[in-house]
Amino acid sequence: MRKRATLMDVASASGVSRQTVSNVLNAPERVAAPTLDRVRREIERLGFRPHTAARALRRRRAAALGIAVGSPADRRLGNVLDPFLYELTVAARERDVHVVTFSAASAGDPMDQYEHLLGVQAVDGFLITDTRRDDPRPAWLRSRGVPFASFGRMWDEPGSTSWVDVDGSAGVAAGVRHRVAQGYRSVGFLGWPAGSPVGDDRRAGWLAAAVELGVHRAGCDASAPQDVNAAAEAAAPLIARLGSGGALICASDLLALGAWTVLRESGLRAGVDVGLVGFDDSDIARSFDLTSVRQPLARIAATMLEMITGAPADDEQPIAAGSRRHPFTESGGVLLEPVVVERGSSRTAPAPSHRPAPASPPHLTNGGTT
Amino acid sequence: MRKRATLMDVASASGVSRQTVSNVLNAPERVAAPTLDRVRREIERLGFRPHTAARALRRRRAAALGIAVGSPADRRLGNVLDPFLYELTVAARERDVHVVTFSAASAGDPMDQYEHLLGVQAVDGFLITDTRRDDPRPAWLRSRGVPFASFGRMWDEPGSTSWVDVDGSAGVAAGVRHRVAQGYRSVGFLGWPAGSPVGDDRRAGWLAAAVELGVHRAGCDASAPQDVNAAAEAAAPLIARLGSGGALICASDLLALGAWTVLRESGLRAGVDVGLVGFDDSDIARSFDLTSVRQPLARIAATMLEMITGAPADDEQPIAAGSRRHPFTESGGVLLEPVVVERGSSRTAPAPSHRPAPASPPHLTNGGTT
Repeated sequence: MRKRATLMDVASASGVSRQTVSNVLNAPERVAAPTLDRVRREIERLGFRPHTAARALRRRRAAALGIAVGSPADRRLGNVLDPFLYELTVAARERDVHVVTFSAASAGDPMDQYEHLLGVQAVDGFLITDTRRDDPRPAWLRSRGVPFASFGRMWDEPGSTSWVDVDGSAGVAAGVRHRVAQGYRSVGFLGWPAGSPVGDDRRAGWLAAAVELGVHRAGCDASAPQDVNAAAEAAAPLIARLGSGGALICASDLLALGAWTVLRESGLRAGVDVGLVGFDDSDIARSFDLTSVRQPLARIAATMLEMITGAPADDEQPIAAGSRRHPFTESGGVLLEPVVVERGSSRTAPAPSHRPAPASPPHLTNGGTT
Repeated sequence: MRKRATLMDVASASGVSRQTVSNVLNAPERVAAPTLDRVRREIERLGFRPHTAARALRRRRAAALGIAVGSPADRRLGNVLDPFLYELTVAARERDVHVVTFSAASAGDPMDQYEHLLGVQAVDGFLITDTRRDDPRPAWLRSRGVPFASFGRMWDEPGSTSWVDVDGSAGVAAGVRHRVAQGYRSVGFLGWPAGSPVGDDRRAGWLAAAVELGVHRAGCDASAPQDVNAAAEAAAPLIARLGSGGALICASDLLALGAWTVLRESGLRAGVDVGLVGFDDSDIARSFDLTSVRQPLARIAATMLEMITGAPADDEQPIAAGSRRHPFTESGGVLLEPVVVERGSSRTAPAPSHRPAPASPPHLTNGGTT
């Protein structure tokens, strides 16, 4: 595990005193412009997360953190950010902080909103979601010493320690393993078109588990945008190829719902004839009795609040303590394991083996499908 | 239109001066306890909404309003409160107010949360949703002079002027009229079990329009709880009775989605064979191309913020001005008309009439259904 950069590291690298670094973070008006620039560059380069983040919060101007809420036009069925806002609200309350919403009118730069909310002292920091490549937000916030944490990897900044994310690859791989253990003869994957980091990560999990278990892969992989009709269209030929006794893992519950409609129209029973697994354990999964890979939203929220405030929840150890409970990755952030929630769409295997599922699933060689 | 109670009305009814009423609202510590109680009782009885609400906000301790966010366990697919939070956030921003979320752990009393948020000065007032009969919130807030407005009628307080709601009955009736005008031969209704004020209101709209248009009603009405599988079960016999050429109006998009799955399984095409209309224009309706009755969420949010802050949006007239733009009901609040958003599930009438739909739909007598 890489050691996290300290304030002293920043001071050494910038050739200034600790106090100057502290001033850059807490009283930038006292620092000459060239020094300010130099120290901020080093803070960014080293991925330094100031503990003053917690201190700034404890100063309690607002005792509040801002979070963007997306417009209904951008909304997709099975959105995980709505239940996540609840979990953030709970986690914040436990640390005597409030959550303030702001509208992200465009998917673009919310920096004018950041400026406004900080300016009127409505918030002290931000909770970021929907991270992406070429994301301007982390650098903007860090350079101004504004505390933040993100749900979603900082794809551009491997060294950052301000993110929490879910290991989508591991979650999908677990979904594949459970299906093979249940006796499904083939396990296909319905994902998003290549190019989105989250989608590519989930597909990689299918591929890795399929290779590991010797599951047939050729032609068992399709993609569709996040839309139920497009998903149904992509799922139809895939389900025909997998055939009865096959299973399909999807990159989202919405994609799984598209596949579910295909099963219904084909007179195939989800779970009995074809196993179906979604991702996110959203209200879609609960409504349609879909097995799904659950992101541990409450734990993600608690970890983010802990990162910003330094205050652990009552039942947790501080992450700054010697023995860290959180699985900090080599690259810096916290990567949590999702859990597969089993429901009717996979519960009844086509050829039920009447022995309990083995602790370590058998490495089956798949003989081909249909 | 009933005149709204004024501060003077409260003063007369309580037998005190205007100044005393003002003190009750703004400086209760100056008022003797028995007087305080008497005046507060009259404020409640008369449904007086103090303009001081706006003044309290302008004093700007927090310049923020609290709103409860529900737990994922209580969440149902097609929830309209998630997009509504976005609209509230936008409407608040336009009036220089922020929205602070808090968690309503139980569906019960949020009053301990109210106390806490007011105590730490995190908010100045509240935005209420999910109103119900025997709702303790309005009286609690009013008796303490805390500004608030609700999305949803105050069912216990006909005189209150602090609510905005949508005329569900009118929305469903419009849905029925459009279907008859499109040539559907019968129009059934799938609602919730009797007893919920919102559900009963929507059913009343179907009944009124069916009577008005002479549409066959017996056996064309079913109910199910807000669950997609229960809805499918209830919709199946109803769709069989309505037959091809019939249409089904539902009290929610989730109920309509249940009916949609029945159509798919029966090989019937939504819109072409059976017309299908949901309610809420949620992400379900957009995902499944369902015609749906839309609640004007942005306007609801703007009206609520206007009620609390007294500040109209840039493009609006103040509601306190001589000519009110808002349709204040006789009973006090603001009732807005929903709009039917036409999509594929009703767009193609079974027997297309090639003339444009008449401005006022013909009063057809329905000859009975299958």
